[in-house]
Amino acid sequence: MRLYDIIKKKRDGEELSKEEIDFFIRGVTDGSIPDYQISALLMAIYFQGMTVRETCDLTYAVRDSGEKLDSSQLRGIRVDKHSTGGVGDKTSLVVAPIVASYGISVAKMSGRGLGHTGGTIDKLEAIDGFRTTLSEEEFVAQVNSIGLAIVGQSKQFAPADKKLYALRDVTATVDSMPLIASSIMGKKLAADDDCIVLDVKTGSGSFMKTVEKSRELARLMVDIGKGAGKKMAAIITNMDRPLGRAIGNSLEVIEAVETLGGRGPEDFTEVCLTLAGYMLSLAGKGTFEEGRDLARRAIGSGAALEKLIETVKAQGGDERLIREPERFRKAKFSHAVLSAKSGYLVSADTEKYGLASLALGAGRNTAEDEIDYAAGIILKKKTGDRVEAGEEIATLYADREDLFAEAEKILLGATEIGPDRPADEPLIYDVIE
Amino acid sequence: MRLYDIIKKKRDGEELSKEEIDFFIRGVTDGSIPDYQISALLMAIYFQGMTVRETCDLTYAVRDSGEKLDSSQLRGIRVDKHSTGGVGDKTSLVVAPIVASYGISVAKMSGRGLGHTGGTIDKLEAIDGFRTTLSEEEFVAQVNSIGLAIVGQSKQFAPADKKLYALRDVTATVDSMPLIASSIMGKKLAADDDCIVLDVKTGSGSFMKTVEKSRELARLMVDIGKGAGKKMAAIITNMDRPLGRAIGNSLEVIEAVETLGGRGPEDFTEVCLTLAGYMLSLAGKGTFEEGRDLARRAIGSGAALEKLIETVKAQGGDERLIREPERFRKAKFSHAVLSAKSGYLVSADTEKYGLASLALGAGRNTAEDEIDYAAGIILKKKTGDRVEAGEEIATLYADREDLFAEAEKILLGATEIGPDRPADEPLIYDVIE
Repeated sequence: MRLYDIIKKKRDGEELSKEEIDFFIRGVTDGSIPDYQISALLMAIYFQGMTVRETCDLTYAVRDSGEKLDSSQLRGIRVDKHSTGGVGDKTSLVVAPIVASYGISVAKMSGRGLGHTGGTIDKLEAIDGFRTTLSEEEFVAQVNSIGLAIVGQSKQFAPADKKLYALRDVTATVDSMPLIASSIMGKKLAADDDCIVLDVKTGSGSFMKTVEKSRELARLMVDIGKGAGKKMAAIITNMDRPLGRAIGNSLEVIEAVETLGGRGPEDFTEVCLTLAGYMLSLAGKGTFEEGRDLARRAIGSGAALEKLIETVKAQGGDERLIREPERFRKAKFSHAVLSAKSGYLVSADTEKYGLASLALGAGRNTAEDEIDYAAGIILKKKTGDRVEAGEEIATLYADREDLFAEAEKILLGATEIGPDRPADEPLIYDVIE
Repeated sequence: MRLYDIIKKKRDGEELSKEEIDFFIRGVTDGSIPDYQISALLMAIYFQGMTVRETCDLTYAVRDSGEKLDSSQLRGIRVDKHSTGGVGDKTSLVVAPIVASYGISVAKMSGRGLGHTGGTIDKLEAIDGFRTTLSEEEFVAQVNSIGLAIVGQSKQFAPADKKLYALRDVTATVDSMPLIASSIMGKKLAADDDCIVLDVKTGSGSFMKTVEKSRELARLMVDIGKGAGKKMAAIITNMDRPLGRAIGNSLEVIEAVETLGGRGPEDFTEVCLTLAGYMLSLAGKGTFEEGRDLARRAIGSGAALEKLIETVKAQGGDERLIREPERFRKAKFSHAVLSAKSGYLVSADTEKYGLASLALGAGRNTAEDEIDYAAGIILKKKTGDRVEAGEEIATLYADREDLFAEAEKILLGATEIGPDRPADEPLIYDVIE
């Protein structure tokens, strides 16, 4: 078998066999296929696409390219949730404790932020002492004892994806449905959970700019998961506006804690209850409605917040920050962004909001950048809100005053104020099961 | 400027600027752009194509990527001919001496064969002692004294093409109109001739399988050449059957000598007269009809054959082989391929005829393979001929008897004998000026 023939076949729009896809991923993993052939095939896939069957085979080959979690060590039903990434998306910090508070295991492996999107691991590292790297023994022991552990994605998982993603990132082949689906699901399936709930973001702050594309991606990933014997659901949620009001690492932890205390923003709370509802339902806790009700009660009773505190403590973090979030170190400076005119906030380019937060030091341009955990944005106005000239749209936080000008410029450029109140958009567009 | 953005732009079907194309070719040449980005862009070009303007800019950037022939050293008008490659195509050995016999300079740089197609340089090396590598001083001096020299393509010419071709060859991006045109013309223009006549082959033995595609490629290359200030013409010739009757290096030299002696196969002679006619016409020797007549007379008078002998002698070759072609070393073995049935030769898959010759040792599978100069095929029957069962279709020549079985199998598999005489196909489809 030669990769040349596989490239030519895909270039000509033909369907690749399982054997051809396995040959490709084996060669990517062991380094026997040169990068220039890999990138040519990725571009051919970009143009010609893949059938569901090909995408499944690609995903399973990626999953099998490295180590997998030995799930036999873990007790009970394991459920995971994965988001395609957005701005202000701190749902994992809320839904994982809710679900774990019902005795369901959440053995969570999360990512770091890059570019305009944040990552759960960075947010947790805003908590002093929190260890995001555990040995497999520690990880398994913690999940078996308290039902929840959150660590960074292990490098040994799905190494083919790491290689492919690095090449896609520099060859303009990221935006391909089968490549996105196989990348996400290849890694997820390596963790071998029983149930997976996907949060597919749609809109200006996400990968998928239209609901139609999001629905297609969700359907594909649900089918891939089911093909691997998993219980699956995917929620398509609105990322045309940031989720909640906080963007930035410690600011988002604080908002998550407030939400677990029942005082979170309405939109963010709703997304969390929906995700947790499906997670609980897939894990055997009744219908979605019953799961959602359980989730609401875990917030009301404080059980979920206690589970987060327990987890932070288990992973070496300073639990007092969770009990009293006002203890988080504040940024040295803050700056109010004011509206120049009166009207309604018609639209917010969410990706640019993420970039404004990045400009304040809250994120990374490259994987090596240092993060300022206290930096970020608190939104005072969101899409649909009435704004008066001179009124505050958002507060910026940073350790350097000179960063505000750039961030403010991005934020104002991304915010449209108009005379008419925009039509309400759904928060949750669809559920794919 | 980043290659990433250029890849993305082409991927999305946009037109690249001259600056972007220059940046790309500069990076290819100096090695600053990694192969995986080059191959991703080549695949994007494969799918999205290029405008004529882009293709011209790409060609000129390729031309300017290395050294160029200092044409100021050469006297008079210089004319070149380039074939897109076929099977049994020994036209350079005939047309170059014809044109040079009229005092027009032919400073010819030719290629070697690879796969099913032969190369002029290999054919010339079938002549004992013939030196296909000359220093630039020797090359210039020979062209200025006798009007003709034929050498291998200098490595310093258009190095970007060498790099691009190597990548295209392993990433299934060879078959792209703008990439083919810019590759051929980039090298040709580096030789800086005044006039270029292109022989664009069409049909089963060539790159371009349809007349329509050949016409498109011819039009593109003519426009590129004119844009660089050259006099241009392109002849679209039939490669649905081998040209002439000889395939293989010394066998083709012998057929070229016979043609210069006025005893060549009709089809091959006709293509040579047409090409030479346009070369002479572009070089100022009147209309095409007048040029064609001059070409015919150079054969009749023996002047063209004398010019070939003079050239062979000047480059150290044994001229007696040209004067008495029966002196060429014969292959150790020959084998008659017989027809199993009676009828007409309906079609011949010319590429496979080339592969049969390759199987006999007359060509190269990889650039490192050694060639058996005496090996090859003499066709006894061509498309349209009547064939009786048991009659000889072709004679195979090789130094090893065990090679015949494979070559015969390929040849018979590529030859269709049917009850009805096929319709005549044109030998020359079109001329693009």
